[in-house]
Amino acid sequence: MSFLAALVNGVAADSLPLADRALHYGDGVFETMHAVGGRIPLLARHLARLELGCARLGIAPQDPRVLLRELTGLAESTDAGVVKLIVSRGTGGRGYRPGEGESTRIALAYARDAHSPDKFRDGVTVGWCALRLARSDALAGIKHLNRIEQVLASAEREQAGWYEGLLCDQAGRVVSAISANVFVRFGATLATPDVSRAGVAGVARGWLLDEPPAGLDVAIRDMLPREIHEADEVFLTSALRGVVPVVALGERRWAVGAAARAARERFEAIGIGAEPAP
Amino acid sequence: MSFLAALVNGVAADSLPLADRALHYGDGVFETMHAVGGRIPLLARHLARLELGCARLGIAPQDPRVLLRELTGLAESTDAGVVKLIVSRGTGGRGYRPGEGESTRIALAYARDAHSPDKFRDGVTVGWCALRLARSDALAGIKHLNRIEQVLASAEREQAGWYEGLLCDQAGRVVSAISANVFVRFGATLATPDVSRAGVAGVARGWLLDEPPAGLDVAIRDMLPREIHEADEVFLTSALRGVVPVVALGERRWAVGAAARAARERFEAIGIGAEPAP
Repeated sequence: MSFLAALVNGVAADSLPLADRALHYGDGVFETMHAVGGRIPLLARHLARLELGCARLGIAPQDPRVLLRELTGLAESTDAGVVKLIVSRGTGGRGYRPGEGESTRIALAYARDAHSPDKFRDGVTVGWCALRLARSDALAGIKHLNRIEQVLASAEREQAGWYEGLLCDQAGRVVSAISANVFVRFGATLATPDVSRAGVAGVARGWLLDEPPAGLDVAIRDMLPREIHEADEVFLTSALRGVVPVVALGERRWAVGAAARAARERFEAIGIGAEPAP
Repeated sequence: MSFLAALVNGVAADSLPLADRALHYGDGVFETMHAVGGRIPLLARHLARLELGCARLGIAPQDPRVLLRELTGLAESTDAGVVKLIVSRGTGGRGYRPGEGESTRIALAYARDAHSPDKFRDGVTVGWCALRLARSDALAGIKHLNRIEQVLASAEREQAGWYEGLLCDQAGRVVSAISANVFVRFGATLATPDVSRAGVAGVARGWLLDEPPAGLDVAIRDMLPREIHEADEVFLTSALRGVVPVVALGERRWAVGAAARAARERFEAIGIGAEPAP
């Protein structure tokens, strides 16, 4: 997808030096953020996860004030719908061995996502991907650039015609959807899979865990595929799309539930998932 | 490390479009090849592995005749010591979803490796990395661009002062070194770990398995760390460095063995690991 504008280390650019380690090793982290009317909801949470990812990988951190200024500036000046930030380890080092130098930041503005939120309101169909996510103590949880698994799962999803694909890890535990986290409701408990061995700790997931809808407890735990089928309600969360109710998975059908609706309103209130103003 | 020359899709370049999927997802494969006097030993094996990697990932293949011409041309014109080829899925698709378009090829020529082969002749010290490689049915064996694990292991190696780091997978089986495969001799058998769940099926490894030194059987099998310590002989293989004998691992010491010497001569005969002509 082509972008509206891009900055590499703060300078307008449309290309990256061939020596950059993001190209050679996927050696970096990223954030994909929803922008609306020049604002980026949950921006502080995105920057916090980015900083955590850099720390985990030993990548020189970027000044959060500079990031904040650049990202909001890009969102405002382009009226972007999506702003993406990549922080690569940069061009230093030799072979796999990382250098000590500064990281490179790449900020990209994209037009509003073609998916209309209205398409999600009545729920979507998802399916189980055959691909199993690798378990990695070193990489689980953070949003690093090593994403071939998600690309392959996305090709599966496309072929099957689902809105999203659900993923298990190599041990058969549920992790997430391809580009969203999963929440399931059992009675008054909203549970989401542990992502400490595989998967990404989504910003929308984190926000919902910290501030769940009234009357619901939240739990992070191991989950088997059959538990998803047995749940009272299933929905996806994403910082780009907010809450997306799941209404079909294989033979199983659900109505859009009260928890999804309550969570959805929470996101819409900060501008995520609501129909943009005309 | 800076390069002597670079071609992107056959055209001299020093940068890559920001939309390229190698940058966003590490969505591609690569080969790092030894070049000597304008020649690239084992080039056909490198191109075969590249093609396999593209097929596994569903990336549009590149014409091998074009690759052969470009890579040898680059090696000849620059007198490079190392030639690297990256094939990225290109700029198509939307988000993780891959497009159907052509892949992008990036050929890079580097100066001769600063490591002198003489440094390896008497053997090297290796150690066990704490990092555990993820197991992935989808990605094991091929040389894809998702290499953060190798970067992190390389930082460990650097800090410990080893020449190379040995890696186990999340199940505790030996996989390889960071940028080389491992062979261990038990009596008249040369064994190397299975790489069908984690690791890279090295070109040098493949050549040695197909054409082992006289008098030795070869075996691919699961291997536990203690078996490495119990081996009669241990050496590393790499298409850049040929055969590198291991003489120290923790408290264990070995002399440079006959199998390593025999294998080493095999590689030196095709120009890998020998001192370059002055």
